[in-house]
Amino acid sequence: MKYPRELNKLIEWLKKFPGVGRKTAERYAFDLLKWDERQLHDLGLLLSRLKLNLSSCPECGSLKEQSLPCPFCELPRESQSLCIVSSPKDVFTIEETHTYKGLYHVIPHVLSPLDSHQLHETHVQIIKDRINKHSIKEVILALDATIEGDATSLFLKQQLQEQDVLISRLALGIPMGSSLDFVDEGTLSRAFSGRNAY
Amino acid sequence: MKYPRELNKLIEWLKKFPGVGRKTAERYAFDLLKWDERQLHDLGLLLSRLKLNLSSCPECGSLKEQSLPCPFCELPRESQSLCIVSSPKDVFTIEETHTYKGLYHVIPHVLSPLDSHQLHETHVQIIKDRINKHSIKEVILALDATIEGDATSLFLKQQLQEQDVLISRLALGIPMGSSLDFVDEGTLSRAFSGRNAY
Repeated sequence: MKYPRELNKLIEWLKKFPGVGRKTAERYAFDLLKWDERQLHDLGLLLSRLKLNLSSCPECGSLKEQSLPCPFCELPRESQSLCIVSSPKDVFTIEETHTYKGLYHVIPHVLSPLDSHQLHETHVQIIKDRINKHSIKEVILALDATIEGDATSLFLKQQLQEQDVLISRLALGIPMGSSLDFVDEGTLSRAFSGRNAY
Repeated sequence: MKYPRELNKLIEWLKKFPGVGRKTAERYAFDLLKWDERQLHDLGLLLSRLKLNLSSCPECGSLKEQSLPCPFCELPRESQSLCIVSSPKDVFTIEETHTYKGLYHVIPHVLSPLDSHQLHETHVQIIKDRINKHSIKEVILALDATIEGDATSLFLKQQLQEQDVLISRLALGIPMGSSLDFVDEGTLSRAFSGRNAY
């Protein structure tokens, strides 16, 4: 199009970033042109080698440094519970809360018929195998509170029903610091039905 | 912090993108982890070599391919007018309108006391030299309609006053497709004072 060829190429790449459209990609590209040659080179090198340094743990699916053991599979962890999440990022987010000390399992994605994302039997079998291997007592479904997250939670609950484990799901309710005014009806209704003795 | 070292590094780089904070940088970084090794390598290579392929035209300051002459300085262009912009991107944006066929001059930035951005005498001298060299009849100030853009336009007008050129500035008014309801008072007032016979 209107820009020099290499710049157009860069814009096309940047448009692949999540939530980035043409205008934002152009803004990023022109900003990158202001960077030092040295900075561009360093970022370029980091990207080219990204997969050499970072990989998925073959056991739990979390992100790990290639050369180190997975910090989320290493003992000692309280290995009687297994927390199921749909993205490696969620593992870090949950770890930050310092609330959960058990094992994790990252499923590749939530169920999403529109994107033709399914969970195959092999995915479920891997979870069952881990439940048996670690003598898991509780499976915590920590999936998004979206329609897709709901569907996936329900699917996994059905699939794991015959295992001798407690299956739980994260509480739905009012986010901390939020005023009732700003909470939608669905959330408020779930907060009511999930109310606790105080 | 909480992420593997290489991922933290990547997040720090992505935070340098304009308008990108920590959360967005994390989102981009985790998305990049899903890319193929091949794609990451291609993007990395493109970034490392960006400055080898693209450069600024030494004459007008526009962006050009290193190996080609500057398309905005090459004749035949109607070389009696000189359009002053504050970013190489603006040159492309104006070209897209197919309204202007003259020469361009990119100043390095608008005046901004807070960022200690000034325009030095050398910058002004270069514009004066180009006015003489090309026998320019009209200088069009195509700077942002912001306080900084206003200040820069005024500054350049004063500096170029003694040159034998007409100095004009882009019209201020209601953007096309906009309803009067959504136009701020300043714009509406400028649209009134700049009204045209119809």
